[in-house]
Amino acid sequence: MSDYYSEETHGPHEFFELGDVELESGITLPNARIAYKTHGSLNEGRDNAILFPHMWSGTPKAMEIFIGQGRPLDPSRYFIILPGQFANGFSSSPSNTPPPFDGGAFPNVTIGDDVRAQHRLVSERYRIERLELVLGWSMGAEQTYEWAVRFPDMVKRALPFAGTAKTTPHDYLFVRAHEDALKSDPAWNDGFYRDSSDVHVGLRRHAQIWSVMGLCPEFYSAEAWRGVGFTSVEDFVKRFWEAYFLPMDPNNLIWMGWKWRHGDVSRHTGGDLAAALGRITARTYVVPFAHDMFFPPGDCEAEQRLIPNSTFRIVDSLWAHFAMFCMTASDREQIDACIGDLLKEEVT
Amino acid sequence: MSDYYSEETHGPHEFFELGDVELESGITLPNARIAYKTHGSLNEGRDNAILFPHMWSGTPKAMEIFIGQGRPLDPSRYFIILPGQFANGFSSSPSNTPPPFDGGAFPNVTIGDDVRAQHRLVSERYRIERLELVLGWSMGAEQTYEWAVRFPDMVKRALPFAGTAKTTPHDYLFVRAHEDALKSDPAWNDGFYRDSSDVHVGLRRHAQIWSVMGLCPEFYSAEAWRGVGFTSVEDFVKRFWEAYFLPMDPNNLIWMGWKWRHGDVSRHTGGDLAAALGRITARTYVVPFAHDMFFPPGDCEAEQRLIPNSTFRIVDSLWAHFAMFCMTASDREQIDACIGDLLKEEVT
Repeated sequence: MSDYYSEETHGPHEFFELGDVELESGITLPNARIAYKTHGSLNEGRDNAILFPHMWSGTPKAMEIFIGQGRPLDPSRYFIILPGQFANGFSSSPSNTPPPFDGGAFPNVTIGDDVRAQHRLVSERYRIERLELVLGWSMGAEQTYEWAVRFPDMVKRALPFAGTAKTTPHDYLFVRAHEDALKSDPAWNDGFYRDSSDVHVGLRRHAQIWSVMGLCPEFYSAEAWRGVGFTSVEDFVKRFWEAYFLPMDPNNLIWMGWKWRHGDVSRHTGGDLAAALGRITARTYVVPFAHDMFFPPGDCEAEQRLIPNSTFRIVDSLWAHFAMFCMTASDREQIDACIGDLLKEEVT
Repeated sequence: MSDYYSEETHGPHEFFELGDVELESGITLPNARIAYKTHGSLNEGRDNAILFPHMWSGTPKAMEIFIGQGRPLDPSRYFIILPGQFANGFSSSPSNTPPPFDGGAFPNVTIGDDVRAQHRLVSERYRIERLELVLGWSMGAEQTYEWAVRFPDMVKRALPFAGTAKTTPHDYLFVRAHEDALKSDPAWNDGFYRDSSDVHVGLRRHAQIWSVMGLCPEFYSAEAWRGVGFTSVEDFVKRFWEAYFLPMDPNNLIWMGWKWRHGDVSRHTGGDLAAALGRITARTYVVPFAHDMFFPPGDCEAEQRLIPNSTFRIVDSLWAHFAMFCMTASDREQIDACIGDLLKEEVT
C-alpha cells in the first residue's frame, strides 16, 4: 500500500474502537473502528458540539479547511467532531483490514453503518445528547440526512451541501461508471493487488471520467482552471484530477462508491421518501451547488420540499460539485455564509 | 467482423468512388468511397435537393425515420440525399479498409474530410449547385455547420439539431472518455482484433457510460424508460444501450469519435469562431434539445448569436440528446415542425 493513508499525510487521528459490528449487510466486521479528529473543547453542558462527516474519497482532514478562529466553525466556541467513515483508509477499510475481509473481500458498507458508528462515538465517548449542527458535503450530506432522519432528537440543525437523501437513478449510474473505470484495469484483479499504485491505469481512467462528470460544461468553456494555476485542459486533467486520485486506494474508492450509490433514507419508512424526510425536526438548509452534475439543484429542491422546517439555498460557482474545495474566495464565502446563518438562527 | 454493416441490416446503399483522397491529416487514403442513400427524384432544375448527413455511430438508414409522404421531408417533392461519412462501416472505415490502413491503423478522419467527400458526391454525381436544406443531428449538425461555413453559396437553409460548430472542451473530454472505455478492453488490442464481438466487454463498458451521459437526470427520475417498454433501469441499460452498441465495430466508433471531438469550423478562419460563423449565408435554425448533456442549449445559443440570419429554438424532451430517436410522438412532432417551418420560409 502507498503511504497515503498515514498521519504524516493527513495529520493525527483519534480512533474509536467499535468491537465486532454487525453491518446492515448481515456480515459482522470484527474489531471495527472509526478514525476521527476533533477541534475545540466540549463544554460542561455538552451542548456545543458540531458533527461534520466528510465526503467520498476524503478523510476528516478534508473538512478542516472550514474551521478557524472568527469563522462560523470557530473552535474557540464549538466542539467540532470530524468523524471518519468506513472505507476511507483510516477507519476500517479494504486497505487496512486483515483476512477474511481484506481488499476485494471487504464487506459492503452503508451510510447507515457509518452513522450508527458515528452515533456510538458521539454518545458513548462524549455522552452528547444533542448536536448543535450536523453538516456535510456530497456523501457527507447523505450522512447528514441519515442522521437527521434516524436520530431526529439529536440533530438541532442540519446542513446538507450538494447531496441527496436518496440517490437518484442517474447518480447511481454515474457512480457505478466511476467504479467500473477502476475495475476495468486488469491489475485491479478483483480487488487483490499488492500495491495500489499497481492499479494506476485504472486510477487514471477513473480520474478522466471525473474530469468530465465532476465539473460542468460552463467550467471548461470559461477556462476556470486558469484562475487556479493550470495552463491547459490537459494540464488540469493531469495535475488536478490525476494527481488527486493517483495516491488513493482503488478498493477504498470502490467501497465508498457502493455506499454512495445505495444511499437512501427511505429504507427507514418502507420506501416512502416523504415519510422519511417528514421525520426531520432539525432546522435544515438544503444547499445544492449550481451546475452540479451529480446532485442537480432540482433534485435537491424536490427533497427540500418534503422537509418540514427547511430552507433552500444555492451556492453559485463554476466549480459545480467541487465548490466545496473552496478554490475561489467566493465559494468559501458563500459556504461560510450558509453555515454562519444557520448557526445564528435560534432553534429550540 | 459481425454482419452488422451489411445491406441486410441497413438496406441498400449506393457508393460514390472518390479515388485516392488526401485527408486533412496529410495521409492519402487509396480507393476511398462514401456510401449513401437517396429518396425521391432530382428535378430538372436540380433545385429540390436536401442533404441530411447522419450522426456518430449511425448510418444513412438512421435518418430515414424523418422521410415520408406528407411529412416535411416528402420524397414526392424533394430529392433527399442521406450521405454517409468516413468510419461509419459502409463508407471507408477501419472495419472495411485493407492494409496498411486496416483496423487500428486507419488514419484519423475529420468533419472536413466528410464534407469534402459529400461535396464531390453532390457536385460531381448530381451536378447540384445549391441545396434547399442541409440538416443533421449531433455529428450530423457538425457536418451541417461545416457545409454552411465552407460552401455558403451552396446552402440555402441550414438546420443543425443538437450539435455545435466547434466542439466544447467539456464535450471533448466526454467523447474521449467514451473512446477510452472501448480501448480499456485488452481485447481491443490497439484496434487489431479478429471479430468486433471479441471486444464485447469494452462495448458494454462504453454502453454503460452512454447510459449516464447520453440522457439526463430528469429522464431517469421520471422513469421515462417505462413509456417505451422497459421494466427497470437495469433492463433499460441492457436492452436499450447495450443492445444498441454491441453489434457495432469498436474501431468505427473510436474513429468517428475522434472526428466528433475535433470538430471546429473556426480552423477555416485561423481560430476565429465569430468570423467562421459570420460566413454563413443560409437561413439557419439552431435547435438544441433540452437537458442535452453533450450540447447544452446554452452552448448552442452562444453560437447562434454569431450566425447572421439565424433563429434559436429548443426541442423539449426528457430524451435529452436522444430526442432525435423519436421515441415519443412529441419528439417527432417538434422535430418535424422545425424542418417544416424552415422549409416553408421564403429564402432567396
